[in-house]
Amino acid sequence: MSTVKELQDKIKELEEKLEKISQKNVARKKIDEMSSEVVDSNPYSRLMALKRMGIVNNYEKIRDYTVAVVGIGGVGSVTAEMLTRCGIGRLILFDYDKVELANMNRLFFQPHQSGLSKVDAAAETLRNINPDVDIHTYNYNITTVENFDKFTEVLRSSNLTGGPVDLVLSCVDNFEARFAINTACNEFNLTWFESGVSENAVSGHIQFIIPGETACFACAPPLIVASNIDEKTLKRDGVCAASLPTTMGIVAGFLVQNTLKYLLQFGQVTNYLGYSALTDFFPTMTLKPNPSCDDSNCRLRQKEFALKPKPEIAVEAKEEKPIHDDNEWGISLVDESEDTKEQVTISEGVQLAYTLPNQTAVEECEEATADADVSLDELMAQMKAI
Amino acid sequence: MSTVKELQDKIKELEEKLEKISQKNVARKKIDEMSSEVVDSNPYSRLMALKRMGIVNNYEKIRDYTVAVVGIGGVGSVTAEMLTRCGIGRLILFDYDKVELANMNRLFFQPHQSGLSKVDAAAETLRNINPDVDIHTYNYNITTVENFDKFTEVLRSSNLTGGPVDLVLSCVDNFEARFAINTACNEFNLTWFESGVSENAVSGHIQFIIPGETACFACAPPLIVASNIDEKTLKRDGVCAASLPTTMGIVAGFLVQNTLKYLLQFGQVTNYLGYSALTDFFPTMTLKPNPSCDDSNCRLRQKEFALKPKPEIAVEAKEEKPIHDDNEWGISLVDESEDTKEQVTISEGVQLAYTLPNQTAVEECEEATADADVSLDELMAQMKAI
Repeated sequence: MSTVKELQDKIKELEEKLEKISQKNVARKKIDEMSSEVVDSNPYSRLMALKRMGIVNNYEKIRDYTVAVVGIGGVGSVTAEMLTRCGIGRLILFDYDKVELANMNRLFFQPHQSGLSKVDAAAETLRNINPDVDIHTYNYNITTVENFDKFTEVLRSSNLTGGPVDLVLSCVDNFEARFAINTACNEFNLTWFESGVSENAVSGHIQFIIPGETACFACAPPLIVASNIDEKTLKRDGVCAASLPTTMGIVAGFLVQNTLKYLLQFGQVTNYLGYSALTDFFPTMTLKPNPSCDDSNCRLRQKEFALKPKPEIAVEAKEEKPIHDDNEWGISLVDESEDTKEQVTISEGVQLAYTLPNQTAVEECEEATADADVSLDELMAQMKAI
Repeated sequence: MSTVKELQDKIKELEEKLEKISQKNVARKKIDEMSSEVVDSNPYSRLMALKRMGIVNNYEKIRDYTVAVVGIGGVGSVTAEMLTRCGIGRLILFDYDKVELANMNRLFFQPHQSGLSKVDAAAETLRNINPDVDIHTYNYNITTVENFDKFTEVLRSSNLTGGPVDLVLSCVDNFEARFAINTACNEFNLTWFESGVSENAVSGHIQFIIPGETACFACAPPLIVASNIDEKTLKRDGVCAASLPTTMGIVAGFLVQNTLKYLLQFGQVTNYLGYSALTDFFPTMTLKPNPSCDDSNCRLRQKEFALKPKPEIAVEAKEEKPIHDDNEWGISLVDESEDTKEQVTISEGVQLAYTLPNQTAVEECEEATADADVSLDELMAQMKAI
């Protein structure tokens, strides 16, 4: 039997241990105003230095902006972390998935977070990294009818003054969710970026979409949806996609870099930027909206855009003739005005563009049979044969 | 005065709290063998899927390799995290700096790690993410005479069978450290990647260096060193560099992606890959070694290379005439064999290539006066005028 003194000492020891651990996990204090002061204790010194370097005129304005990130997986979580470290004003996170050990081959989440919802786990880490960012989380699937309305309501009313968010970043892994975002952004006139990584993990892309001004996701549709084939019938049971922290980190980097260029008005925002890891090839292109787009709100935005004076980032049309004369959706490609950039054919753009959904529940993997490098023409021929 | 029962209850309560916290922070258990099984609990399923997708023949071979990362800052820390999540066999980390809040605008380190040495903080996080990776840390400046010998000894004897490391990744932020790595790799015939991010944070590059086969860091020298001007006299007191998590994450992604291609033998390893964020421009080129390189070990490696049959990744010389006929170091550029790649002039490559050292101790920042976009010709003219 221990003495009271021994018990009291034991309590003191345990309390000290707990105190030490809680000190270790405490986030830094909030900072009222971004300062340029170059001291080791200033988390913003290297960002504010962008002003001194002549890159950004008004870096601190980043605190006025609200960005929604839809999908907090391999790309979305790193996207959210980069925006948090850059000191974005408000960050709105949507996901309905849980963290699993199978996600550990990508950046951000850690093994001890397994089982937590991705949005809750992400918010905890991000608040610890930068408590100045106001983080809101929504743990639901945006594609159900009921949730879609909640989703659009959040997008329309969540900026720092109660208005629409300044930008939506799509980091989802399936067509259905991309279409939900596209539908919402066309209807409520929201500017957004689409992003994706191929199922073989070695290519990816980002695409900047201003409703009415650049092609929407339905203007240059993924082939499956364009022919009204149900995505689910095309998925191969048991196929599990590969992924790499490199490709996903690079795509997130492209996404946030172009987000910073758009919000803080420096450099040129790229309309479409692809990444092919095997050869380090980076196709860029500009996609014009399709006047006969299936989405009536896209057609409406196109009419509105035709009537207003063009802003600086407007698409410069040089050559309006579609490269594929025979393509049935009238997709046309426009040359980049800079001659340093690659011009690519639509088949190269499309083959990199989309990825199969995350098969988290799948227990067994079969051999993948689809060829990720099939061209647009081949896919069109295949679809017509169905 | 509390009763013994009360004290015992208190101890029980504190012990439960501690137990809960330690469970939360516990890393996952070690995994003996990489499996392709697609279950949520397998952290390697999405990497092993690269085999099924036809990208990599033998992914599990990654466990046989040892990579040294020199410099655990904005690029090096993300590089180390990507390699850890990919399941590299052994990782050797070098740095002599401490984590500061001023580093929080880049990925990886968190505020509660402020004050810890970068290598210790990184090792703790990385072991938690993937306990299967064998992590060794060295907390010293590699450029002092005594430490340089210790550094080369580690590089020569630290792989999994006691031989030289399989690859060295330079993620340092100054010329002196790059030259130390270059000297070591030429002397001991070690393959390495150089990397860098510009002081205005909007461009970066990686360069693959096989001694004797591709240009070393002294073959295509940074201009300051080539003219024997002391780097320190050129640094402007009080200038603090800008940095962004995007640019550094992208450069780390390029570095690790090309590391994976090199180690696991898939795709094409790019000799030089640049990134210009403002326009999303990605110059690539191949740099041949300089027969009159100042480094005698480089010249020795060149002679050895000339005598051996060329491996698959050998440089294909198409055009050996230097683009700048008047350049005094005889630097020559070789076209990429693929016509999808950009050809760039040396001035574009060099202007992106190097960055000023981290000025962590600097208290005040003056206006930056040097022009980061100055061309090679202009710099040569400036140097001749000195």
